[in-house]
Amino acid sequence: MSGDLLAVHALLAEYGALLDLGHYDAWLDLFAAECRYSVVPRENYDAGLPVALILCDSRAMLEDRIDALRGANKYNIHTDRHLIGLPRIAAEHAGGLEIEAPFAVYQSDQEGDTRLFATGLYRDRLVPAGEALRIADKLVLLDTFAVPSLLATPL
Amino acid sequence: MSGDLLAVHALLAEYGALLDLGHYDAWLDLFAAECRYSVVPRENYDAGLPVALILCDSRAMLEDRIDALRGANKYNIHTDRHLIGLPRIAAEHAGGLEIEAPFAVYQSDQEGDTRLFATGLYRDRLVPAGEALRIADKLVLLDTFAVPSLLATPL
Amino acid sequence: MSGDLLAVHALLAEYGALLDLGHYDAWLDLFAAECRYSVVPRENYDAGLPVALILCDSRAMLEDRIDALRGANKYNIHTDRHLIGLPRIAAEHAGGLEIEAPFAVYQSDQEGDTRLFATGLYRDRLVPAGEALRIADKLVLLDTFAVPSLLATPL
Repeated sequence: MSGDLLAVHALLAEYGALLDLGHYDAWLDLFAAECRYSVVPRENYDAGLPVALILCDSRAMLEDRIDALRGANKYNIHTDRHLIGLPRIAAEHAGGLEIEAPFAVYQSDQEGDTRLFATGLYRDRLVPAGEALRIADKLVLLDTFAVPSLLATPL
Repeated sequence: MSGDLLAVHALLAEYGALLDLGHYDAWLDLFAAECRYSVVPRENYDAGLPVALILCDSRAMLEDRIDALRGANKYNIHTDRHLIGLPRIAAEHAGGLEIEAPFAVYQSDQEGDTRLFATGLYRDRLVPAGEALRIADKLVLLDTFAVPSLLATPL
Repeated sequence: MSGDLLAVHALLAEYGALLDLGHYDAWLDLFAAECRYSVVPRENYDAGLPVALILCDSRAMLEDRIDALRGANKYNIHTDRHLIGLPRIAAEHAGGLEIEAPFAVYQSDQEGDTRLFATGLYRDRLVPAGEALRIADKLVLLDTFAVPSLLATPL
């Protein structure tokens, strides 16, 4: 168990760091070849209405989305900072590890003002890939959905 | 030492996750049979005036408090998100592990607006229970005491 | 690797806890005998203009700075809370470990109001010292530079 938990720590740290650095290719490499990435408001999810704000159900879709972001971010005047809290292993089975981790994302503008952008919960299924773990399914449950510029920021 | 630190990580992750999910029975199970839970403003504590905002000095009292919360939360229109920072082991002795961890709690309302609710420091005494750890004493030192709805939110 | 990652967790937890407790002597002991501490706005750093807001390139300078802080903090009416996110090991070589960790600092005033003070990224070089790690170089990349009272708060 302890080795798994440390590997989860390491993966989540990479996840946040690579997003904040804008290293999107390396970030994509954290996902398994067959993967799914979705962002769903927590309220919808709890009500059984999993209408996703974002849904990429293949790696190719996720890559397309990142390409679009790169174009949009030329005009992007903020920087992001992900703070990811301590993860827990919710289940462990043949299909991989199910983990959860809370997160907060802050944005800073060009004047150097920083504000809270969003909070939520990652609910991931992770699969082994050699000695490391890769993301097979990432569900971002979003507490904050009243965000003006959601689509321009990977969560 | 390293095994202990990972077990502390795991316990704190469970603690925050179960509160945010509203899984209060499972949250109670993180406490030892004999336990204490208190919330004290940091300023009072530093001044040697440990007047608690909340004090439960038995498991039965803590269970009563949670029952009251469940009633109040029927009218509760916010959701919580705990972010718990990296813990440190301050002491290790026959009575258990003394640990500290900083935390921030965010609240989101039904419009999907999120704001910082409170920050503070957990100062816990943890005792072994099989392979896991349980909370024998949890002192929540609260930086933020100007909160309107404190009693409705477990910290 | 896993032992190193846990040691990094432990060091960062000490770092934030000791600052928030105001235990500056113990905090200084986390640094190696030869060390460097600097605070640079992220924007400047990314533009190749590493003009530091703070630069201490010896342990003696860092000690002097802490003495000055102690004097200033007699009139200091806020308390700090560091939340340090999961670290990643960016490189490991003969000169030590290169690590990164995101952070947020909150401040609370005497009325018990808490607000976000700053976010940023620690980029540290750590060197072994017995079983623990010490900080040989700490670069604080600051997202937030529009802060009125920066100099009074160690980051």
